[in-house]
Amino acid sequence: MAEPIRFTAGSLAPFVEQALIAGGADAASADAATRAMMHASRLGVDSHGVRLLPYYLSVIATGEVNGAPELRLERAAGSAAILDADGAIGHLACYRAMAEAVAIAREQGVGAVTIKRMSHMGAAGAYALWAAEQGCIGFLTANSDAAVRLHDGRDAFHGTSPIAWGAPVPGQRPWLLDMATSAIPMNRVLLYRSLGRILPADVAVDEVGRVTTDPHAARVLSPVGGEYGYKGAGLAGLVEILSAPLTGMALSTELKPMYGVSTGRPRDMGGFALAIDPSAFIPAPIYEGIMTRYLESIRAAAPAEGAAGQPMAPGDREWAVEAERLKNGIPVDPDTVAAMEQLSATHGLTPPVRA
Amino acid sequence: MAEPIRFTAGSLAPFVEQALIAGGADAASADAATRAMMHASRLGVDSHGVRLLPYYLSVIATGEVNGAPELRLERAAGSAAILDADGAIGHLACYRAMAEAVAIAREQGVGAVTIKRMSHMGAAGAYALWAAEQGCIGFLTANSDAAVRLHDGRDAFHGTSPIAWGAPVPGQRPWLLDMATSAIPMNRVLLYRSLGRILPADVAVDEVGRVTTDPHAARVLSPVGGEYGYKGAGLAGLVEILSAPLTGMALSTELKPMYGVSTGRPRDMGGFALAIDPSAFIPAPIYEGIMTRYLESIRAAAPAEGAAGQPMAPGDREWAVEAERLKNGIPVDPDTVAAMEQLSATHGLTPPVRA
Repeated sequence: MAEPIRFTAGSLAPFVEQALIAGGADAASADAATRAMMHASRLGVDSHGVRLLPYYLSVIATGEVNGAPELRLERAAGSAAILDADGAIGHLACYRAMAEAVAIAREQGVGAVTIKRMSHMGAAGAYALWAAEQGCIGFLTANSDAAVRLHDGRDAFHGTSPIAWGAPVPGQRPWLLDMATSAIPMNRVLLYRSLGRILPADVAVDEVGRVTTDPHAARVLSPVGGEYGYKGAGLAGLVEILSAPLTGMALSTELKPMYGVSTGRPRDMGGFALAIDPSAFIPAPIYEGIMTRYLESIRAAAPAEGAAGQPMAPGDREWAVEAERLKNGIPVDPDTVAAMEQLSATHGLTPPVRA
Repeated sequence: MAEPIRFTAGSLAPFVEQALIAGGADAASADAATRAMMHASRLGVDSHGVRLLPYYLSVIATGEVNGAPELRLERAAGSAAILDADGAIGHLACYRAMAEAVAIAREQGVGAVTIKRMSHMGAAGAYALWAAEQGCIGFLTANSDAAVRLHDGRDAFHGTSPIAWGAPVPGQRPWLLDMATSAIPMNRVLLYRSLGRILPADVAVDEVGRVTTDPHAARVLSPVGGEYGYKGAGLAGLVEILSAPLTGMALSTELKPMYGVSTGRPRDMGGFALAIDPSAFIPAPIYEGIMTRYLESIRAAAPAEGAAGQPMAPGDREWAVEAERLKNGIPVDPDTVAAMEQLSATHGLTPPVRA
């Protein structure tokens, strides 16, 4: 594979935003999608970073994503709100939902917002992190088209069903858990095909549902947990319940796939945002003291013999990647670089600066 | 191992309740603990069922659990409440917290209750199920003394950190996920020691943190996920954050162990209950229609080649066990049977009836 090319974060973000606007996104959609893609690209979640810019432009062009949506937020009860995203790009819908969840939590202690009629929202961690940056414990999830089997199942049933939680830590970057409930991402299977590598044990199955380590035979992912995959599948079920029955949107098996021929119609995805304001439950110094002690104890924990390294708190790996990328530039894969050059030429955009 | 003896559920419950009252529990504590233990014994979670009766009696006797607590509930904000459980048995604290979370959710759409100063609460699923039986999506969690290592860690760090979610299903038993975030329970290790069986791969480590399948060498459990154990450890971290920093209670590493010599002082455990009222977000027929379709699609999903059976929804296994046990009686292990006979003789209680 060709090497990625590194660009400065400070030039990549405005390029992405200009490209989205040139592609038909309104200012709010372009701003939100850029923030979320740059979150992923800075923190090392490259599958959901600027690599997806051409995809988002393509679905805005066909109308599968509404580039100029009219979001409608309805406060349904004291601490509950419903966001109708009008086919918006998922990033705009999720930031808007989390903003409202945080606002409600500051008033009520906890706030929950369901999201209707959105599209792909990238890395769920972006929104949970943002809640934490505002001082709340945040939770965001959404279903997506089926790619992961049930435990004991043969066929794709749930999406990769991300669960993202963030929690504020005084004077430090937040605690941040952003995990797919599949054993691995589908992108890993595609990567291993191109590299000719063998998959880890018990992460994917072939067309009859047999576990396989051959990335070419792998057709469907397994839920995280291996022999205990009912746990991963159960967590995916939670994602499904909060995203579909609670919002009126489609189940994962019913969603139009993310890729493939665009129908030109919104995918009508659902999602769920929750925020908890710790200060409603506990004086800030107590929360902060225990949280600090907790993270210190993780970072001081004795490693296992043969471990890859020191135990880390969720997010620690991401903050290290971010620091390195802000220094050395954000790597972009060659296909995306080519697409960016094309966009730059077509729309007369200022290209991003190589780091 | 000697065979368990089966008792009728209808006679076992009043026996457990009478024994608790004879042991110093007040009526509310005895009722709650009996409900929760019988939940576990009916559904097949035997580790948290009536087997724990002698344990609870012992800690009430020493004062480690307050048998006659004065629970204080404070409504901290519009949708937030704090329950000070005054050293109560965990079952009483968790049912009380979930009752309040559900009451708040019916008024506000969502309700969150933190729990302070409780003790061991048995099977977390009992409380999530109860929320679902009242028409709410319920979530309950609590930390416990350290038994599970961090990913890449050597020593016990988190408790088994259960995550329990329940969701109502029209005309059926609820959807119920009650999972430890450890790969397996410690009881499984003890059982395999006595059976001379080999542990599954990648579920426990020895004293230097090496993965082992020898149950005698196993000292600490691993988080669920095997190679992806950072996911299980991250979920355990969520449990820790909701149970300790958010409540002011102790971290798992700081909690007095459940077993061992009683200090006679409350263990001061924390926990967290959340309820979401679907009807605040979506008309009931829509929620119910999608939920029904979702469960039907799980139960109709094609099994993988070589699978143990038909894919099941979380809870399905438990409902099948419950039906069988209500018919044939609830199995109780011989040690617990002997303890029950002793209790019966000491306090002049009506013994449970063999099925």
